[in-house]
Amino acid sequence: MGNYAKLWLNYSSKKNNKDCKVLKKIVFSGSFADDKILENAKKELSLGLKDMLGIEPQIIISSDGNTQSCAAKRELTSGKAIADSEVYTISIKDGSIDISAVSSTGILYGVFNLLRTVGCEKDVEKEYASAKTFRPSNPLRMLNHWDNMDGSIERGYSGRSFFYENDEIIINNRTVDYARLIASVGINAVVINNVNVKQAASYMITDRYFEKLAQLGEIFAGYGIGLYLSLNYASTIEIGGMDSADPLDEGVKAWWKEKMAEVFAKIPTLKGFLVKADSEGRPGPFTYGRTQADGANMLADIAKEHGAIIIWRCFVYNCRQDWRDKKTDRARAGYDNFKPMDGDYHDNVILQIKNGPMDFQIREPISPLFGGLTKTNQMLEVQIAQEYTGQQIDVCYLIPMFKEILGFKTYAKSGKDIGNGDDTVADIISGKTFDSRFSGIAAVTNTGNDFNWTGDYLAGANLFGFGRLAFDTGLESDEIAEEFIRMTISNEDGVVDTIKEILLPSRAIYEKYTCPLGIGWMVKPATHYGCSVDGYEYDRWGTYHRADHLGLGVDRTDKGTGYALQYNEPNASIYNSPAACPDELALFFHHLPYTHVLHSGKTVIQHIYDAHFEGYDEAVKLAEKWETLKGKVDDGIFENVSERFKRQLYNAKEWCDQVNTYFHRISGIEDEKGREIW
Amino acid sequence: MGNYAKLWLNYSSKKNNKDCKVLKKIVFSGSFADDKILENAKKELSLGLKDMLGIEPQIIISSDGNTQSCAAKRELTSGKAIADSEVYTISIKDGSIDISAVSSTGILYGVFNLLRTVGCEKDVEKEYASAKTFRPSNPLRMLNHWDNMDGSIERGYSGRSFFYENDEIIINNRTVDYARLIASVGINAVVINNVNVKQAASYMITDRYFEKLAQLGEIFAGYGIGLYLSLNYASTIEIGGMDSADPLDEGVKAWWKEKMAEVFAKIPTLKGFLVKADSEGRPGPFTYGRTQADGANMLADIAKEHGAIIIWRCFVYNCRQDWRDKKTDRARAGYDNFKPMDGDYHDNVILQIKNGPMDFQIREPISPLFGGLTKTNQMLEVQIAQEYTGQQIDVCYLIPMFKEILGFKTYAKSGKDIGNGDDTVADIISGKTFDSRFSGIAAVTNTGNDFNWTGDYLAGANLFGFGRLAFDTGLESDEIAEEFIRMTISNEDGVVDTIKEILLPSRAIYEKYTCPLGIGWMVKPATHYGCSVDGYEYDRWGTYHRADHLGLGVDRTDKGTGYALQYNEPNASIYNSPAACPDELALFFHHLPYTHVLHSGKTVIQHIYDAHFEGYDEAVKLAEKWETLKGKVDDGIFENVSERFKRQLYNAKEWCDQVNTYFHRISGIEDEKGREIW
Repeated sequence: MGNYAKLWLNYSSKKNNKDCKVLKKIVFSGSFADDKILENAKKELSLGLKDMLGIEPQIIISSDGNTQSCAAKRELTSGKAIADSEVYTISIKDGSIDISAVSSTGILYGVFNLLRTVGCEKDVEKEYASAKTFRPSNPLRMLNHWDNMDGSIERGYSGRSFFYENDEIIINNRTVDYARLIASVGINAVVINNVNVKQAASYMITDRYFEKLAQLGEIFAGYGIGLYLSLNYASTIEIGGMDSADPLDEGVKAWWKEKMAEVFAKIPTLKGFLVKADSEGRPGPFTYGRTQADGANMLADIAKEHGAIIIWRCFVYNCRQDWRDKKTDRARAGYDNFKPMDGDYHDNVILQIKNGPMDFQIREPISPLFGGLTKTNQMLEVQIAQEYTGQQIDVCYLIPMFKEILGFKTYAKSGKDIGNGDDTVADIISGKTFDSRFSGIAAVTNTGNDFNWTGDYLAGANLFGFGRLAFDTGLESDEIAEEFIRMTISNEDGVVDTIKEILLPSRAIYEKYTCPLGIGWMVKPATHYGCSVDGYEYDRWGTYHRADHLGLGVDRTDKGTGYALQYNEPNASIYNSPAACPDELALFFHHLPYTHVLHSGKTVIQHIYDAHFEGYDEAVKLAEKWETLKGKVDDGIFENVSERFKRQLYNAKEWCDQVNTYFHRISGIEDEKGREIW
Repeated sequence: MGNYAKLWLNYSSKKNNKDCKVLKKIVFSGSFADDKILENAKKELSLGLKDMLGIEPQIIISSDGNTQSCAAKRELTSGKAIADSEVYTISIKDGSIDISAVSSTGILYGVFNLLRTVGCEKDVEKEYASAKTFRPSNPLRMLNHWDNMDGSIERGYSGRSFFYENDEIIINNRTVDYARLIASVGINAVVINNVNVKQAASYMITDRYFEKLAQLGEIFAGYGIGLYLSLNYASTIEIGGMDSADPLDEGVKAWWKEKMAEVFAKIPTLKGFLVKADSEGRPGPFTYGRTQADGANMLADIAKEHGAIIIWRCFVYNCRQDWRDKKTDRARAGYDNFKPMDGDYHDNVILQIKNGPMDFQIREPISPLFGGLTKTNQMLEVQIAQEYTGQQIDVCYLIPMFKEILGFKTYAKSGKDIGNGDDTVADIISGKTFDSRFSGIAAVTNTGNDFNWTGDYLAGANLFGFGRLAFDTGLESDEIAEEFIRMTISNEDGVVDTIKEILLPSRAIYEKYTCPLGIGWMVKPATHYGCSVDGYEYDRWGTYHRADHLGLGVDRTDKGTGYALQYNEPNASIYNSPAACPDELALFFHHLPYTHVLHSGKTVIQHIYDAHFEGYDEAVKLAEKWETLKGKVDDGIFENVSERFKRQLYNAKEWCDQVNTYFHRISGIEDEKGREIW
C-alpha cells in the first residue's frame, strides 16, 4: 500500500459469499494469450478473493492457445473488432465460476466483474445463475489527462500529477495501481499529457522520454490499456527546427514520416495521438490556409503505416471575439468548422467532440456535430475534472448528465459506409452503433496525487462511473452510484442510501444555483469557480448572457445567430421556438423578457429566484445528510467530504445571493415569496 | 552612460546662456561641510555646464568651516530643523553666481536649481537678477519603492527592480544615477523595499544584507538622501525565532532593542523604518489585542535611542468584508482606527496617510484623518505608480490631482504642541505648517529597470513632478510640466506646448472614462487595469457601486454609513448633502437616482454617458496631438509614447463602451444624444 487510497479496490473484508463454493475454483475459458494481462487477471482475482472473503481459489486456464497478446498488437482493425475482442461471459459451470472470453483483456474484465459482485456483497451464485455476457458499448473508453510535465495539472483539483514532476516521468507503484483502478471499470485508453502541448511535453516524441514511455506503456498494456500522447501540431517547428507546419508541405510530411517511424519503434505500445490544433492559441493547419481535415489526414496517413490512429479535437473557435459583436456565436463554431468536410477525414482519424457546443458547462445542449457529421469517426468528450461543475469542492455526480447526453436523439438521417456495414448512422453518441470504423467516449480526467486521487472522495464516483458507463451505456446512474459506494465507502444499507441521496440529485442542485435556464458562464474568469455574473460578459470568449433591465439570454434562433438550425429536425424547430424549447435551455436559445412564462408556469425571473434559493437550501440538506454519517464511515473520508461541504455551502450561498441580487437589481422585479435579496 | 535614459539630466547642448559670464565663476558660500555631497555638487555643476553650454566654471568654496556633514548625522531634530538646513539662496554677486546654504545639501540643491534654469533655457542673469531663496515646503520628501528582493515590483509597470535580483542587492552606476535623478528634484528620503515585507526582505535587518545596505546608504547620503527600510512587524517571530510579536511583551522589546542596536551600527546612514501592520494580511499589534499606537510606540522608543524615526502606515481596514453588509464602510476605517489615539503616538512616530480614504483611485475625497488628527505627526502618501490610474500605459499626469489634494481645506481647529511651536494645526497636508515635529509627503514610486525608468516616457513627468511639488507646493502643474518637457524631451516651444496640452488635461480625461462622479473600483480585480463594472461589486474588499435599475452610489451620509461626518465642518455638511456635494464626488457620498440632476444641470445617467464618450474622444485627440510630434522629438521617445497611446485608446474604448452599456442595460434610459451603446 502506498500513501494513497485504494478506492474501489480496497478489498475490505465482506460478510456475504464467504462460504460460496463456486468461488473455490475458477475457470478462464476461451481463446486468449498467456500474457501479462492474464497474469494480472490471475493476481487480481487471488488478491481480491483472499482479502474480501479469505478464499484462495484454484484458477484453471482453459484456452485454445491463441497466443497473440492483445496488449502487444498495434493494428488498425475497427471499433467493432475491438469491442468484439473485449466481450466476456460469466457463468456457473460444474460448480465453478467460468469466465470466458476471446482475449486476455476479456478475462481481466471478467475478473473485475466478479470482484465487483463480491465487493458489492451481491450473492454470487444468484448473480451468475444464468450466464451473463458483457459487451462494451464503446470500443474506445478513454481518459484524457491534462497533466503538464512540470507536475501541474491544467484544471486539476486533486493535487499534482502522478505522471510527472520536474519534467521527468514518474513510474512507481501508484502507476500500477492507477492502471488497475481504471482497468477495473473498463477504461482501455489513456492520453497521459495535456492537450496543450508546450515546453518539455513537446519533447515526448524524442529520445529524451522514449525509455520511460515504453515502460509506462508496458504497465498500461498489462491491463489492456492503450497508451496515447497529445501531440504538438507545430512539432516540425518547435522541435524539428523547420520553419513550417503546413500539412501539405512535403518537407513537413517527410519529417513526420521519419519521426513517427522512430516513435512507434521506440514505444511499441503506443496506439496513437490526440491533437488540439488551431484552438485557444495553439498552432494548426489554419495558419497555412489549410483545413482541419488537411491537418488530421496528413498525420493520420503516416500513423496508419504503424497501425495507429489520430484523434483530432473539434474545440476550434474564435477566442478573440468582440463582446459588442452579436452576430458571431461561439456555439456555432464546431459545426461551422467541421461539418463542411464531413467525409473527407481519413478512416483512422477520429474527431473528438465535446458534449456541448461551448465548453463543459453544467447545462448545454448537445453539440450539433453529433448527428451533423454522418460520414466521420467520432468520439464524445466529456469532462469529469469538475472545471465548471464545482471543482471537486461542490459535490456534483455527473453520471445523470452523461446519461442525458447519451440519451439525446440526433435524428441523423444517413451516412456513407465507411468501414463495416450499413449506411445509416443513428445516434453516434449513444455509443451503441459502430457504423463508423471507430468511435468511443473520452473524459478529461479528475485525478491527481491527492491521497484520495480526486480531491473529494465523492468525486471518485465520477471516475468510477465514467468508466462503468462508457463500457455499458445501459447502466443507470443509481446502479453505478451504488456500486461505487459499496466498493469504496460502505456496504451498510443505510449508509449506501444516504450517499445515494447525496450523489443522485447533486448535479441538479449545482445546476440550480449556478446556471438558470441554460445560462452558464457566470463564473470568475480566472479560476472558473465562484460566481461572477458579469465575469465573462464583456470579455473576448464568446460567452454572454446579454442581460438588461427587460430580459436576458442569447438569441440563437433563425432571427439571431441561427445556431438552432444546425440541428436536424425536429430538434431545430424545437430549439428555434421559445414556446417549444425545453425550460432548461430556454435562455441558451432565446433572449426572453423576465416576465416570459415558462412551461413550468413560472416567469423567467421567478424561476431564477426560486432555483437559486432552492439550490442553496438543497445543498444545505445534502451537507446535513452527510453529517449523519459521522462514525458510520471511515473518519478520513468523513472529514474530507465534510470539509468540502463547508466550502460548497459558502459557494452556494454566494451564488444564490449574487445571482438573485444581480437580477433583482437589474430587473427591479420583486421575488413573489418576499425572500431576502440584497 | 548605462543602458538607460538620463531623463532630465541628459544635459544636451543648449542654445541660450552660452555666453553667460556669471556662469564662469560660481561661489558656494555659507556654512557647510566639505563632504561627499559637496563633492557631488561640484561634479554635477561641472558636468552640467560643460555638456549643456561648453562652460567649465571656476568653483570657489567659501564656507565658514562647519564640518559636520548632513549626510553623516542621524539625530532626531525636527521637520523644521531639517527644512531650515536645506534652504538655499541663489544670487549674482560680483559678476558670479553665488549659491549660499547652511549645509552641503543646500548647495547641491542650489546646483540643481541652476542647472534646471540652464536646462530650461531660461536667461540665467534675469532669473537670478534679484537673490532667490528656496525653502522646502515639506521636510520629508520621500519615495516608497514596492520592490521585492526577487526583482519583481508590486504594482510596477516599468520592468523589474534596479535594486534587487535573485534576493541580492544590486549596486552599480544606475544606483548612482538614480540618486542623482531624484536628488535633482528634491527627494531626500527613500524606502527601498516593499511595505509587504516577506521572504528574503525579512532578512534585510540581518548580516546577510548589512554590507550592501551600508554601501547603498553611502551612495544615497552623498546626495542628501536618507535610507529607510520597510520592516516586517512580525520579525521577532519570522527571523527571531520567538513565538510572539506582542508590542507590550518584554521579550519582544528586548529583541528589538538588540536588533536595532545591531542594524543602526551596521548601516550608519539608515534613518528609520516604514511599517505596514495589520493590513491586508500583514501581521500587527491587533493580533495581540494591542492598539496601533502600542505597536508604533514600541518600535519608535527603541529607534529613538538611535536618532531614528518610525513611519507607520494607516492603511488598516477590514479586507474581508461581506458585500451584503451595507453598514461597514471601508472609507471609515482609517479614521476609526487611528483617530481615537490621536496624541498617544510618540514624537518620532509619523503616521503615513493615503490621500484618500480608499486606495489611490483617480477620484476620492481627502482622507478625514487630515484635519482629524491634530496632535500626531503625519505624512501624506500619494502614488505615482499608476496602479489605478492607467499603469503607465494611459497617460495620466498626476500633479493637478496632487495640487487639489494639497489645496484642500481641512478646517482642523487646534492641537497640542508636540514639539516646536504654536498649538494650532492648520492644514497639515498643505505641507506648509510644521506644527508637528515631523511631516512630509511620500509617493509610491513608478520606477523600474526599463530603459526610460517609468515605462511610459510621459510618466516620467510624475516622478519629476512629485519631487518638485513636494519641495515647493506653491509650484503650478503647468510650470512643472514645462520644466520636465524642456529638460527631458525638447526645448522647442511648439513641442513643449503640444506635450503640455497632452499632460495637463490627461488626469481629467482618465477620470472621465473610468470614474464617473466619484465611483471608482470598476476595474478588473486581478490587475487593476481595464474595465469591469462589477469586478469588485460582490467581493470582500469594501468597494461597491450598489447600482440597481433606479440608481447607484454609496450612501455615506448620516443616513448611511456616516462617513461624511468624519470631516470637520463645513466639509461634513457639504458632503452630507446631495444638494451641496460637489458633482465629482456625488456618487462617492450618495446613492442617487439615474434621474437626479447634478449641479452641472445633467442627470446622473446623462453625465455617465457624456463623460465616457467625451473621455474616449478626448483620449483620441491626445493621441492625435502626439502623432504631430513625429520627427520633432527623439524617435525612441516618439515610438514609446505612440505605442502606449494605441493601448490607451483600446482601453479607453473598452471603458467607454462597457460602462455605458452596463448602465444603459441596467437603467433602460436612452442617451439623449442617441449615440451607439451596445
